[in-house]
This record gives sequence, structure tokens and C-alpha cells, in this order.
Amino acid sequence: MTTQATDDETRTIPYRPGLEGVPAGESAICQVDEGDLGLRYRGYAIGDLAEQGTFEDTAYLLLYGELPGKKEAADFAERLRAEWPLPPSAEAFLDLIPPAAHPMDVLRTGISLLGMVDREVEDGSRQANLRKAIRLLAQTPELIAAVYRRTRALPRLHPRADLSLAENLLYLLTGRQGDAQAKAMARVLDISLILYAEHEFNASTFAARVTASTLTDLHASVTSAIGTLKGPLHGGANEAVAAMLLDVGSPARAERWVRTALAEKRRVMGFGHRVLKKGDPRSLIIQREAERLGRLCENQRWYDTAVIIDRIMQKEKHLYPNLDFYTAVAYLLMDIPRELYTPVFVCSRLSGWCAHVIEQQDHNRLIRPRALYTGPAPRTYVPLDRRG
Amino acid sequence: MTTQATDDETRTIPYRPGLEGVPAGESAICQVDEGDLGLRYRGYAIGDLAEQGTFEDTAYLLLYGELPGKKEAADFAERLRAEWPLPPSAEAFLDLIPPAAHPMDVLRTGISLLGMVDREVEDGSRQANLRKAIRLLAQTPELIAAVYRRTRALPRLHPRADLSLAENLLYLLTGRQGDAQAKAMARVLDISLILYAEHEFNASTFAARVTASTLTDLHASVTSAIGTLKGPLHGGANEAVAAMLLDVGSPARAERWVRTALAEKRRVMGFGHRVLKKGDPRSLIIQREAERLGRLCENQRWYDTAVIIDRIMQKEKHLYPNLDFYTAVAYLLMDIPRELYTPVFVCSRLSGWCAHVIEQQDHNRLIRPRALYTGPAPRTYVPLDRRG
Repeated sequence: MTTQATDDETRTIPYRPGLEGVPAGESAICQVDEGDLGLRYRGYAIGDLAEQGTFEDTAYLLLYGELPGKKEAADFAERLRAEWPLPPSAEAFLDLIPPAAHPMDVLRTGISLLGMVDREVEDGSRQANLRKAIRLLAQTPELIAAVYRRTRALPRLHPRADLSLAENLLYLLTGRQGDAQAKAMARVLDISLILYAEHEFNASTFAARVTASTLTDLHASVTSAIGTLKGPLHGGANEAVAAMLLDVGSPARAERWVRTALAEKRRVMGFGHRVLKKGDPRSLIIQREAERLGRLCENQRWYDTAVIIDRIMQKEKHLYPNLDFYTAVAYLLMDIPRELYTPVFVCSRLSGWCAHVIEQQDHNRLIRPRALYTGPAPRTYVPLDRRG
Repeated sequence: MTTQATDDETRTIPYRPGLEGVPAGESAICQVDEGDLGLRYRGYAIGDLAEQGTFEDTAYLLLYGELPGKKEAADFAERLRAEWPLPPSAEAFLDLIPPAAHPMDVLRTGISLLGMVDREVEDGSRQANLRKAIRLLAQTPELIAAVYRRTRALPRLHPRADLSLAENLLYLLTGRQGDAQAKAMARVLDISLILYAEHEFNASTFAARVTASTLTDLHASVTSAIGTLKGPLHGGANEAVAAMLLDVGSPARAERWVRTALAEKRRVMGFGHRVLKKGDPRSLIIQREAERLGRLCENQRWYDTAVIIDRIMQKEKHLYPNLDFYTAVAYLLMDIPRELYTPVFVCSRLSGWCAHVIEQQDHNRLIRPRALYTGPAPRTYVPLDRRG
């Protein structure tokens, strides 16, 4: 059996496993450049957005193409607040969830259900899709927190009108709000949401676009993205980094731990990236914030542990930390439940996914590649009654 | 703004919108050839599989790579029967579904929920995935029929051990079983399930593979596929053909209807295919069956109407009917509820999707292409308090 293309056209296009480096569409949303341009959302440098903006600002930028003016920003915040309440079917869904269910399976099912009962499910227009995106941004933190608190018999909390999206997310997940430490944590969470919001044709976003390309609905596309993000090669990585840090336990054990892992050829989580071979500009931003938060919390254990692992990985393997690595340090300090790291990633990446779904359908072309056939040569069918 | 690749590598690979003709992976499952080879599943010609085999035979072939022997076929049928019952959470889910919900949204949510509560949800091994695939093949007809009958206050029916999968599907959806007409209808339904089971890297299958490539679970991948299949450019087409035939109404009105549609540049559904430019070999098979079934039912109205539309489309537009076109005729004769045509497609394509998910994870590489950036040039960030 040899690899063979199934028609002449396909034979002329080079085959790249995993579509590595293959242009799969046009997009005006995000620029991923390993050179001087760095990572940009709609033309704005990621560092500026993270340091000077808010997640709401970034979500608006991704969805509408421009930063909001003062009035647009206030309207957007108001619309997010108006869309918080979960519909009755979603509240009833909470009763069906086994306590041991995987939070990403719950979220995938819950978002699919929100689509099933969405009041505009039949309307696939651009304007309706923007409204649906706002509903998803508003409802997802509430859904994640409601499931988590219910399965642990914690009292239900509801979003507060005086808090930003990141402040509410921290409050719903951990109960923290109001004091200076909570404010500082919410700001770091806000920055991590900005950094996680968008990254071109990553696997979950690309899955959302493939789904959207049949002109199906926005919730279907986001459901595909959530199922894709769950995988350990994608969104599951930040949780795996935290598990690793907890396993290492302290800075004193870090060097020995990582050298043993390398000697035993175990994978050290949070390093390397399919596209970013020379390092991830987002990692430097969240590293600085994680360090600052560690000092503020008077708990430098996780940061110091991480730095040692990072140094050895760069020296021994020439691999740089990706966004997930120091994000795990920050989330550990915030006491965000570890199994919710990937759902928190969803709260952010929703903005990018929805922007891509809308862009895909603005200039749609069905995404339908070819396979290289590697299977059996033609063979003769034998009816069941003549088989062994 | 010009289209520009974001790194040197991407610049060397030709850009094909929609990945048309682009090889996106290797696969031993299905050969789509417009020449002499035709359409083959695992090396066997589609005509032989449809005329001499059963859907169970085909599903086994797709999943395991070889046709079952007599013992394997009996075991497979027995395992399908053993997996029919829906888990309690899925039964409770039925209570949450608004009567007007879109059947594909319900199915997407229901399959995602079956994943959430699957007893092997944590086990992503090849063997567990084969078991999950069998569960999905067994449970999906039951789920579709339960939702349909409940929202219409029809008595619940359960699969019968003396019926094949196609016979059960017909029975659950229409109540038909036992007499000669029901047998004939179930055989045509069986053939249509064989024809729908697999078609290489179509959009839903490709979405399932993108999702699977992060090493997420099988139900997540199938959920992506269902959301993708819903779109009118993909699975929604068979339902649209039936709507068109009902609108045309009779053979006497067909020619005028289609000529008017062409003059008004309205799309005539069920013609053309992204890959199959010279006609769809599956269409000839289901056309013959639809004609036979029309004679048996003494109702040739839909078949005769379809033939006229087909003839004019070939003559005027040089477009050939695809699989959806005459399938709609057959399903109309069976009285399958029109909104369930795409869910019936799911019952079949599940076998192909699961085979692809398993194959993808057998030799996994993350599917992560690049975008051609078409957005704004770098621009300077302005903080909110200095915006208008």
C-alpha cells in the first residue's frame, strides 16, 4: 500500500501532515508573527491590549473589528449584564449532571443546550450571531460556576452588576471579591483572559470554522470548539501544568524533578508551540503578572518552582514556555479549582471563536479537503453467507 | 490590505479556498475516485456493499477494517442490541426539550450528554472507542425516535430484537414493521444507510478529525460532526430536496417549476458535489431503489417528479443529482418525518465518523493550519479614557 492522491488536482499540492504551515483560509482577526510584529488582534499589539485594556475591550474588538468608544463600551457591558440569567432548560440541565462528570463535557453539553433553546436559534444573520456571541460570553461563567458549586454542594452565587467579567468570574468560582487581593487577582485573571482570547487557526478555532462552513448555527460551531479544546494537546495543557507543579511541590525539588523527567523521557507540560518556535510573547506577559501576584500573596512557591523548570527546559531542550505555563502559576495562586482551568479558557476564547464563525460565514466557502488514500487496493465483495 | 502569509513556510504552499483539493491527512477508510475505481469503503465497491450487504456489515467494515465473518456479524448484532437502552440522564434530558427544538440541535446535545455520562468517558483507548462507537450506533435511533414521539405525544416505541438496525429505525420512526411493504421499505432504508455511511474528508468527518486531533474523546468528535452536518451545505440537503418536491407537487408541474427556478436563479437542491464533478455513483443506486419502491407503493408521483427535474438540470446546467436527491424520494415514500432526514443521516454516518476518529488517533498529528492575514496593519492602542 502506498500513499496516493485520489485525483490529479490533489497530486499537485504538497502534503503536510496536520496541515502544518498550510493556509486554510483568510482572516482579518489575528496576526501571529514570530518576528517584530508579534501577536496582534485586529492590528493591536497583544502587550498593549493586555497591559492597558480589559477583556471586555478585547472581546468587543475581536467581534466588531474596532475598539469600542466610551458609549459602545458601556453598552457592551450593559448587554453582557442583561444576558446573564440562564434559561429554565439550562437550570433544569444542572439537575442531570453526575458529580464526577468532566467539566468540559458538561460545558460542551450545556452550550449545545443553550443553542437548542436559544430564542434566535433560527436566525443565522450576522446581527443575530453577534447577539448570540454576547449571550455566550455572559452565560458561560454563570454556567461553569453553577455546575461546579452545585456538584460540590456549595451555595449558588450569581454575577454582580458592580463587577467586571473577570471580577465576576473570580467571584463565582472562588467567592473572592471586594478586597485589594481580590482586585489584584481579578486583574491578573483579566489579563489572562485577554491573552487566551484569540490565536488564529488553532485547532479549536479551526474546528469552529469547519463547522460554520456548512452554514450551521453559531452554537454548533462553538460546541465543536469546546469539544476540541478539551484535548490534552490543546486547552487541557494549563491544567496539566498545575498538576505538574503540585507534583513537584517546591522550588527545592524542581531541578531534580525536571531532570528526572527528561532522563525518563516524560513530557514536561507547558513548553513549545506548533507555530511559535522562538517563544510565546504571551508567556512573558503572564510570567510577570504571576511573579507580581506571588509577591502580593506572599506565596512565591509556585512561581519559583516554575522558573527553575523553565530555565532547565530552555537550557536542555531549547523549548520556551507557552501561555499555559505561567498561567497555571497565577491560577494556582487564585485558588481557581484546577479542573476549571480549561473552562476558564473557554470563557475567554469564546470571543475569538465567535469572531471567526462570523468571519467564516461573511465570506463562506465549504471547508472540504481531500484525503490521501492509504487503504486496501480494490477487492472483491464476498456475501455474508459465503464468509467464514 | 493585501493577503499575506504570516511566515515563510506558509508562503510556499498554494492557497486553495475551502481547502479544495488539498490533502489534509492520510486515510485507509474510503476511496473517492471519479474514474473506474468509483467509491470504495476499505477497498470494496459501494455498489456491491449496497446490493449484497447490510448496514451492520458496512458499519463493521468501516470500524474494524474487514468485513465480519459469520460469528463476528452475529456478535456485532448482539452487542448493538445490548447497548440500546438510554441511560437515565438521557431519559431525563427528554423532559427538557421544547417541542419546537430543531432535531439536529437536540441530537447534538443528546450525543454530547451521552458522552458526559458514558461509563468509559475517561478511557480513550482504541478498544474503548470501538465500544463507544457501537453504543452510539445502538443508542442514536432510539434517541431520535424517543424525542420525536415525545414531542408529538406519540406512544414511545422500543427497538425489537427480531429486527435489523434499518428495520428498527423504520419501526421507531413510523411504526411500520412486519408486512411485505415494511420489509421492502426497510431494505431501501438499509441501502440508503450504506450509501450515507462514509465519504472521505467531507466537512462533518473533517470536523470530527480536527476535534479528535487534540486527543479529546470520541463523543466530543462526533458532537462536532453532528453540529457540522446540520448545515444546509451538508446534511441539511436531503430535507431541502423533499421540501422542494412537496412544493413542486406533481410531475405535471415539474418542468415549469424547475425552469422558473433556473430563470429566477433560485438554487435547485440535490445537484452537484464538491468532489464528484462527473456524477455521484451512489445516486444511481438509490434512484433505482426509489423507483422500485414507488412502484411497490403504487405511488410514482415523487419519483416521476424527481426524474423530470433531474433531466432538466442535466441538460440545462450539466449538474448531476447527488445522493440526497433520490434519497428524498425514497424517504417521502416511507413517510419518514421530513425533519428527521438529517438525523437518519447521522444514524448512518456515525460509522464513518467513528472510524475516522479512531484512525486519526491511531496516527495522531494535531490539525493546526495557518491563516492568510488580511486584516489591519499594525496600529497604536488608545486607552479607553482617551477614546471618543
